[in-house]
Amino acid sequence: MKDFNFYAPTEVVFGKESEKQISQLIRKYGGTKVLLHYGGQSARRSGLLDEVKAQLTAANIPFTELGGVVPNPVLSKVYEGIDIVRRDSLDFILAIGGGSVIDSAKAIGYGICYDGDVWDFYSGKAQAKSCMPIGCVLTIPAAGSEMSYGCVITNDKTQRKWSYNCDLGRMKFAVMNPLRTYTLPAYQTAAGVTDIMMHTMERYFSHHDDMLLTDAIAEALLRTVKECGEKVLHDPENYQLRAQIMWGGSLAHNNLTECGTQKDFATHGLEHELSAMFGVTHGAGLAALWGSWARYVMHENITRFAQFAVNVLGVRNNFKDPEQTALEGVAAMEAFYHRIGMPASIPELIGRTLTEDELITLADNCSRGKTITIGNLKKLTYDDMLAIYRMANQ
Amino acid sequence: MKDFNFYAPTEVVFGKESEKQISQLIRKYGGTKVLLHYGGQSARRSGLLDEVKAQLTAANIPFTELGGVVPNPVLSKVYEGIDIVRRDSLDFILAIGGGSVIDSAKAIGYGICYDGDVWDFYSGKAQAKSCMPIGCVLTIPAAGSEMSYGCVITNDKTQRKWSYNCDLGRMKFAVMNPLRTYTLPAYQTAAGVTDIMMHTMERYFSHHDDMLLTDAIAEALLRTVKECGEKVLHDPENYQLRAQIMWGGSLAHNNLTECGTQKDFATHGLEHELSAMFGVTHGAGLAALWGSWARYVMHENITRFAQFAVNVLGVRNNFKDPEQTALEGVAAMEAFYHRIGMPASIPELIGRTLTEDELITLADNCSRGKTITIGNLKKLTYDDMLAIYRMANQ
Repeated sequence: MKDFNFYAPTEVVFGKESEKQISQLIRKYGGTKVLLHYGGQSARRSGLLDEVKAQLTAANIPFTELGGVVPNPVLSKVYEGIDIVRRDSLDFILAIGGGSVIDSAKAIGYGICYDGDVWDFYSGKAQAKSCMPIGCVLTIPAAGSEMSYGCVITNDKTQRKWSYNCDLGRMKFAVMNPLRTYTLPAYQTAAGVTDIMMHTMERYFSHHDDMLLTDAIAEALLRTVKECGEKVLHDPENYQLRAQIMWGGSLAHNNLTECGTQKDFATHGLEHELSAMFGVTHGAGLAALWGSWARYVMHENITRFAQFAVNVLGVRNNFKDPEQTALEGVAAMEAFYHRIGMPASIPELIGRTLTEDELITLADNCSRGKTITIGNLKKLTYDDMLAIYRMANQ
Repeated sequence: MKDFNFYAPTEVVFGKESEKQISQLIRKYGGTKVLLHYGGQSARRSGLLDEVKAQLTAANIPFTELGGVVPNPVLSKVYEGIDIVRRDSLDFILAIGGGSVIDSAKAIGYGICYDGDVWDFYSGKAQAKSCMPIGCVLTIPAAGSEMSYGCVITNDKTQRKWSYNCDLGRMKFAVMNPLRTYTLPAYQTAAGVTDIMMHTMERYFSHHDDMLLTDAIAEALLRTVKECGEKVLHDPENYQLRAQIMWGGSLAHNNLTECGTQKDFATHGLEHELSAMFGVTHGAGLAALWGSWARYVMHENITRFAQFAVNVLGVRNNFKDPEQTALEGVAAMEAFYHRIGMPASIPELIGRTLTEDELITLADNCSRGKTITIGNLKKLTYDDMLAIYRMANQ
């Protein structure tokens, strides 16, 4: 069992009435002039953006808007945000949207407090010393960025999609209303469920499998999100189901399921290159890769994969043959992906088989030119990455 | 499902090496002159106190000591602490011990920032506006005070044991080393396990039973702490078992298992009067009362008690008769209490049957002279309290 730190200071305000507290929360955390940061269509169409603007106006909190954040948020938009905040002397960022908007807000927050290029944090050249306070109104549960210390930005000049992890960028508050997620398209809901589960799976598959409480909580979370994720596709306006997925998204990525274990995140690393190159939805990319990753690494801790199969997926335990149990678990997970409309391979994801050159480019980018490994259950080298991409390409 | 806030900002530093970070954590949270607050025997005997003092001295952090906190911490000691902090111009409190020491530290922290009598917060006359920063080194897992907003103090003049709940008093950090709990006597370990489980049970039994994720996490926590609590009595130096109990103690009371439900805490309210009058160990008092409370209120939500019986205690579900399942669950819980050396009635707790006058005094104190109810699953009036005390007295 690993020693651990658990730090999740974000104030979560969850439920049907939660949005009424936004301006009060901004004031509580010191905001007086706000950057309103969002994507586009959904915040506007749902009326949420207008409601928030009306609330801020009524509370005499001035704001400047910056919309247009795209999925896999880009560095050029971050630069734009930094310029606006400096120009208008804003002191708080309110992100309205999903993980892309929140990550864009985090990057802006770091960048404002730094004289150099904010990309330095993502390229590993510098560490943030400070961050502007940020709150969020979450509309798309998936990324978990509302309670995590992570932040992924794509450099739209180089197509590098890199992450920066830092406690300073954690949300001061996260407002979550499951009603706002009723209108999420089925594909996006399913991709979100996949991403949520993967955040806990990336912490579950480790060599540190003696933290019984973390295991029990992780398995409880995975079973619940999986069950509700499948049901909600047939019943998209069910508050109970939407609420479990939304809250599960936060708990899956706020380190609760990492206490005593060691995170792996190799599947995430492999996927980030896929979505940087092909613009695919992150959750769908994870589903396309996970089974190949699992089969490639499972012998590092075969009983762990057997435990996952039995306790999360309900596979009957073959006590004499943990490998058989583990393999049935991977197959059951892939069957689940198919049932919720997710791919289980790269061809299912992109619509074609990738060329060997493309696979090599993916592995080269993922290993940053063969200079780094990713993952912990098995530290994946360039060769491992290429092998997994090839497996997933079949 | 209830709307909810979840706010658990305490930085948890957990594990074998955790204590090495104490002086660094004090500095991180602004401490420069520290009140070292503790109980007595255990912190001194274990060498922990000397280690902390040596670490603070090495880090050039001056401190003043105030030991002697007793179980069911008393107001007179809180006054003493407030005087010392003011006299020596201290700016941080480090609590070393269990819930009693942490609660005493919280009360001192509130009192320093208040011109009136700190008891005003406990008697409901005032609300705290501020609290001195506090960190803790937890040595006795049970009360959960290291991550909770609660604080219970006994007024040693009036024998009233009252609580005050406020976010301002939350620990800045909580250092937890399971090795420190190896020497806890069996009785105290068992009472701690009882208290830990009760903190989640007090949130589990509500009318809001549609938050599936919270249920799944609560049940996972209860099963794990119960299993490890029973095993550890036969294997007191097992790190894995001690770690689950210690971390379970924090998660059971940091509101994680309250998200979407409504807390009850009637058993706690009934017990506080018992320990105020008879000085019994809080956890043992809870065990003595819970079965009677459960049988008295279960018809408010009988399927909830059946779910508890099946999912936590492994009782076979009698699908045709939820009441039978529920009753078997209460009996199974009481059998568990007996196996770990806890009482399941007042006579087992105190060694004699209480007189009717004593029962009336308990109910009168608990209802503050018939002016308040306690609990939410069923709001208990004075008559209900007396009936439950009578049931538990058999």
